[in-house]
Formats: sequence, structure tokens, C-alpha cells
Amino acid sequence: MKLAMIGLGKMGINLVANLRRNGHEVVAFDLNEIAVQEATRLGALPASNIDDVLSQLPHPSIVWSMLPAGKPTQATIETLATKLAADDIVIDGGNSFYEDSKQHSSLLATKGIHFFDVGTSGGMRGANANGNFMIGGDSREVFKQIEPIFKDIAQEDGYLYTGKAGSGHYLKMVHNGIEYGMMQSIAEGFDVLSHGEFEYDNEAVAKVWRNGSVIRSWLMELAEAAFAKDPKLESLKGVMHSSGEGKWTLEEALKLQVPTPVIGLSLMMRYRSLEDDTFTGKVVAALRNEFGGHMVDKQ
Amino acid sequence: MKLAMIGLGKMGINLVANLRRNGHEVVAFDLNEIAVQEATRLGALPASNIDDVLSQLPHPSIVWSMLPAGKPTQATIETLATKLAADDIVIDGGNSFYEDSKQHSSLLATKGIHFFDVGTSGGMRGANANGNFMIGGDSREVFKQIEPIFKDIAQEDGYLYTGKAGSGHYLKMVHNGIEYGMMQSIAEGFDVLSHGEFEYDNEAVAKVWRNGSVIRSWLMELAEAAFAKDPKLESLKGVMHSSGEGKWTLEEALKLQVPTPVIGLSLMMRYRSLEDDTFTGKVVAALRNEFGGHMVDKQ
Repeated sequence: MKLAMIGLGKMGINLVANLRRNGHEVVAFDLNEIAVQEATRLGALPASNIDDVLSQLPHPSIVWSMLPAGKPTQATIETLATKLAADDIVIDGGNSFYEDSKQHSSLLATKGIHFFDVGTSGGMRGANANGNFMIGGDSREVFKQIEPIFKDIAQEDGYLYTGKAGSGHYLKMVHNGIEYGMMQSIAEGFDVLSHGEFEYDNEAVAKVWRNGSVIRSWLMELAEAAFAKDPKLESLKGVMHSSGEGKWTLEEALKLQVPTPVIGLSLMMRYRSLEDDTFTGKVVAALRNEFGGHMVDKQ
Repeated sequence: MKLAMIGLGKMGINLVANLRRNGHEVVAFDLNEIAVQEATRLGALPASNIDDVLSQLPHPSIVWSMLPAGKPTQATIETLATKLAADDIVIDGGNSFYEDSKQHSSLLATKGIHFFDVGTSGGMRGANANGNFMIGGDSREVFKQIEPIFKDIAQEDGYLYTGKAGSGHYLKMVHNGIEYGMMQSIAEGFDVLSHGEFEYDNEAVAKVWRNGSVIRSWLMELAEAAFAKDPKLESLKGVMHSSGEGKWTLEEALKLQVPTPVIGLSLMMRYRSLEDDTFTGKVVAALRNEFGGHMVDKQ
């Protein structure tokens, strides 16, 4: 099929490679011209702006947006709403907040444009081949038009039509919340090992754990790869950034009053890792000193 | 090779099946005669007591104990210490506490008997085929004598000699701690989904998540299997039992002063699930009532 990819960052460019390898025609656009050139080398047709993108597509058009969540995605979808026509299809494959996706679906629906919110998992490697896609959108019938694309670029059984608009990004949000807890748990285990009385080879441990154990997982494969490069991760600082979906999962749990202590605490441990020192620590130290004369560490 | 299996419960009987399928001769003993008959049907040689076990083995003998941790394992190892001779080999494949395993190793070493503490993962299915084994024991050289057994019954790359006595069970302990956190995180995610505004098919979600996503894992495969049988798990109560290794992991983390909030909280949520109501809840309700006149729920 022929479709456009708007946004050629780490995920978008790998999706272009995946689509091209599977014989799809791709019109590629990004504000970064170097990324467009890279896509051209992968066999994509370059475009210099949105109008140029749309002029190269048949009708009904299929436009896949793969941009950072928030303003970049919203601005692009609003532009597409003014330029596309009835029966055209917009796919948002980014990590958009599901409430935004519901609004984008409504906006596009006013012009008869179909919208699909697609949670994309599997990292850059998954985008490049055998990816994972959770696909929301109000029409299952229209989904069938684009299903052949997902059948080609996904891992076998690695895509799912999840129901009405927003449900794809919602599922991806919860997926990422689970990911936070799984990663924190794996990491805590290796932390215990690194402090205990036995000397383990972290790479060998990750390798044996990914072969036949109950905790075998792709994350354990990634741990093995990381320890192979740097057995004690001495080149890294233990700073854990996050890109929002764990926070959204916790906010959703709070809204629904569903207890999710492990996902919540995983997020808090990420925040803790961003600080060299904490005001909490100072307050507790001060209180211990006040009531018991306990030692404090001075600046 | 020829070896004995003492303990023919869920794990032991499956190990007998695995060993037999791989051409090993097994002398099988359990206090439960029906289990011994079952092992005999798998081609094992039945034994009616420990002396009968040992009379059927060559020297050096290899005796695999697959009994509940604690007293049953300790009693068996103490008996073996009185009956085995130098160069014989004892394997404890159960979930023993690693400090016990260090003591068992020392006890057997006084008579020149070699000891290996083997953490066994992969559940009953893993015991039956393609299992996972973390193997501690003071002599790497002696390990080589029994390595062919593990090569046969383990998943490819699914066994690891981890170093001195205790290190196998220590690694299995931490493995189980990680397992607690991963399971709790996965479960919390499905809990959010079940309360949110979209209607998901849990089985389909687990299936798509195990194919290409970042959180793909054996636990997600097991989730798919569970949801396939009971889509909303309506036949179950949410009571989460535990068999000790998560608690040991947390105790070890406390001893080492390593922060493991997610593993710790996963254990606490298991304890919470064992109670229909909590005294914590009563105290908080009483305090809210005392200071603010807030409503309490009466028995």
C-alpha cells in the first residue's frame, strides 16, 4: 500500500525501513531534512512539507504521524484536519495521551476523516521489524483497510484492534506502567546480588534467567546485552528518566481508585533517581536530630 | 547416568520424567507409595527407603533431594551424611534457604561428600522439560561430573554453575523476589484495564503483549493461558499465597540495607490479600472519625 510517514525520528525512520522491506510505498516527511534523506535511502519518496506529502498520496489517503506526544502531534493532526478529505485515514503511532487521541478522533470525524490511535511497542528494533501495535479507532470496518500494513510490519500475532478511539493509546499507557514495575523489580534483584556475599557474573545470570526460568522476558535479554557491554554498568549513572506513560498510568489508577502500589512506587523511584539529594532526607535528618540528638551529615 | 531422586512431588516426579526421557537411570523414593508407583511407570527403579535407594546406586553415588525446604530437606541430608561415603554427591534441588545450604555443604564436607544447591525454575513444566537450574557448590571440578545431567534436562543455556555452596539457592531466592515484583506489576496493569472506560479482552491483550512488546515474557504467556480458561478470573479469589523466597529476598535486602521497595511492597500486597479486613484499616477509620467525625463502616 502507499502511505505517508510524518516524523522520522528513532521510531519513524525504523517504521519506514520496516514498511519498505515489506513492499509498501512511503512518502516521508520530517522537519529535519537529514532524516528525510535517510528515508530516501531506504526507498521512501521525499516530501518537503505537508502539502507535498498529500499531493503524492492517492485518495483515500493514509497518513501515519510518528511525532512526540503533545503539541507536535496535535499541531500535525489539526493541520491534517484542514487538508484531508472524507474517507482519508490518520494514524497516530506516537505515545499520545489517550484523552488527546479521543479528541483528535472527534476533530477528524467532523470531516469524515478516520482516525486510529496506535500504541507502538518493541522499541526501535520492534519498529524496524516484528513490532507490536495496539490499535484503537471507531470503525473496525475501516481498520480492515489498513490491517494489511500491520500484518506485514508486526510480529506474528503482534497487533490488536482494541476498540473505540483512545483504546489503543490507553492500552499502550498501561503497558508502559507494567514495564516500569517489571524493570524496577529486575533492577532491584540485581542490586541485591551486587551487594550480597556471592560473586555473580551479571551477564551470565541474565543469560541463565532468560532461558527457561519463570522470569524469562525480553527485558532480561536486554539486561544480558547491557551487562555484556559493561558487566557492572560502571559507565552509567543510575538516573532513570521517564517519558510520561508511567505517570499517566498512575494518574489513571488514582482517577479510578485502583491500588497500583508497585507501578506507583516504580515511578517514584525514577523521580528519586533524578535528585542527588532530597528535601525529604533533610527533613528526616533534622527531626531525628531534634528529638534524639542523632547525628546529621552537614553540607 | 544413574542417580536417585528423593521426593516425588509436583517437581520431583516431573524431574524423573525429564531424566528418564533423556536416558538416565533413576532410583525413585518418596514416603508416598503412590508417587513411587507413578515414577515406576516412568521407568524409574522403585525404592522403599533410603537404604534401599543407596543399595541400588554405584559409588560414587549421586542423590538428588527434591523435598520441601526446611525440616524435610534437612532431615534427609542429615541421614545421607550418615550413610554416604567420600566422593558421593548430594544435590538439593528444592527451595532451601541459602544459609541452610551452606550448613548442609559444610556438614557433608566433613565426610568428603560433595554438595550442590540447585535453584530450579520454570515451574512443573520446566521440571518436565527444558528447565532452568542455578547450581552452587564448592567444587567446579566435581560439578563437571554432574554437568551432563543438567545439559540434558535444562533449556539450552538454561543452567549455570554459580560458585560456592549457597550461591545457587541465593540466586534462586533473588529470582523469586524479582518474580514477585513482575507478577504484581502485570497484575496491577490488568486491574487498571478492568476498571477503565474501555472494554478489553484480557486474553487478547495478553496475547498481543507477548508478541513483540517490551513486556513480552513467560508470565504474559501464562496470563494468556489463564484468561483463556476464565476471561475475568471469576472463578478465583484474589488471595496471593507465597512460599517464602520473596520474604527471604526482602530479609536479605534489609540485612544488606539495599532499597528494594517494589519487591518489598509486592510481598506486603500478598500478605494484605490473605486478610479479609485489616487492623490497619480499623485504626485509620477510627482516627479519621476521632479528628474529623468522618463516617466509619460498622461491623
